[in-house]
Amino acid sequence: MTNSRPPLSTTPRTTLTRSKERGRTDRAELDAVLDAGLVCHLGVLLGGSPVVLPTVYGRDGDTLYLHGSTGAGNLRAALTGDISIAVTLVDGIVYARSAMHFSANFRSAVVRGRAVELIDPDERMHALRVIVEHSAPGAWDRVRQPNKKEMAATMVLALDLTEASVKVRTGGPKDDAADIETGGVWAGVLPLRQVWDAPISSDDLEPGIEVPQEVLDRTDMVSVPGR
Amino acid sequence: MTNSRPPLSTTPRTTLTRSKERGRTDRAELDAVLDAGLVCHLGVLLGGSPVVLPTVYGRDGDTLYLHGSTGAGNLRAALTGDISIAVTLVDGIVYARSAMHFSANFRSAVVRGRAVELIDPDERMHALRVIVEHSAPGAWDRVRQPNKKEMAATMVLALDLTEASVKVRTGGPKDDAADIETGGVWAGVLPLRQVWDAPISSDDLEPGIEVPQEVLDRTDMVSVPGR
Repeated sequence: MTNSRPPLSTTPRTTLTRSKERGRTDRAELDAVLDAGLVCHLGVLLGGSPVVLPTVYGRDGDTLYLHGSTGAGNLRAALTGDISIAVTLVDGIVYARSAMHFSANFRSAVVRGRAVELIDPDERMHALRVIVEHSAPGAWDRVRQPNKKEMAATMVLALDLTEASVKVRTGGPKDDAADIETGGVWAGVLPLRQVWDAPISSDDLEPGIEVPQEVLDRTDMVSVPGR
Repeated sequence: MTNSRPPLSTTPRTTLTRSKERGRTDRAELDAVLDAGLVCHLGVLLGGSPVVLPTVYGRDGDTLYLHGSTGAGNLRAALTGDISIAVTLVDGIVYARSAMHFSANFRSAVVRGRAVELIDPDERMHALRVIVEHSAPGAWDRVRQPNKKEMAATMVLALDLTEASVKVRTGGPKDDAADIETGGVWAGVLPLRQVWDAPISSDDLEPGIEVPQEVLDRTDMVSVPGR
């Protein structure tokens, strides 16, 4: 599927002007960053100035989905003009020999565009499935689906992924030659990683309900102690 | 220090309208979230629409510092009007008995306000120290300080933390009573945590330079194998 897609857009708005060597133009890299993140940061215009808010999301093909309560002013605001979302994964801190070369290893995607509100019930349901499956892969079919009341209280937005940029930094510090020559200062990377801990069953869960396989799979655990 | 501070602002822009029970008004909670994060998401107006970008930061008292190249259009844009920054830590995925009650446990801070560019050399140097120490506590005094050329190429912004909101979600799912009664569906939390892996010395590091104690302390390691 990836091979048939055009490369990432190179509109002036998404052409990197700084640290260009970190830019990625492969469409698959955008998908990889979006799929690896759990929460995105949504930027909307509110009262004439930008506000950034964390929210869960999901991706299907070239569309990113967001959702929220119909009463959420931020989602309403997101429909009044272009929005931006960013997903960032921090992979480590880069320790350099000089203060100004300290950095972070990261993968980030920034998307800009106009979101649309989904109206069609099937499209809305599909989007909610995509969002839930993004946070909790394999969970949708195991739990109660949204009912009419819940659907009526929920707003679902779709954002096209056409206008996006991806930046990735990996590897060690890029120190000045003079500092490397002087020596005597440790330089390297302290890698950072996200790990799932053992699942914690809800206090109000009745006895005898096992942790689903899809949850265990996420943790590389074969079992967890019962409640 | 915290006790003498006023509570978080309750301007209309930072008063939560959704999930108010997750709102925190203690100033110390804002500090805790900002201090726990590594990267913030900065929202600026660029060409009339918001763009969200990840960047490192630092906090000292009631001020958040950002920095970047003097050539960075995004930082220049940040000076033309109000900006917003958000810091979010995801602590787990909440698995519910119904799709619409899936959620994330998280700590997040959203700040809005007008950033100012620092001009005074001492203030600028202090801000850079705060930013580097945020990413790499204890490293500043161990490495080469910024020189005049580096300082000239660097833009430093300060953002007052007066107008901010903090949201925290903890605990298990809040399922509907009917779904709990029906039963048969696992519900709980899959906790997420960030861990530091063993430091990796730079390829160009000369032999005999040990990993600094401040780096080892971050990982709870007493030593790492030499290169």
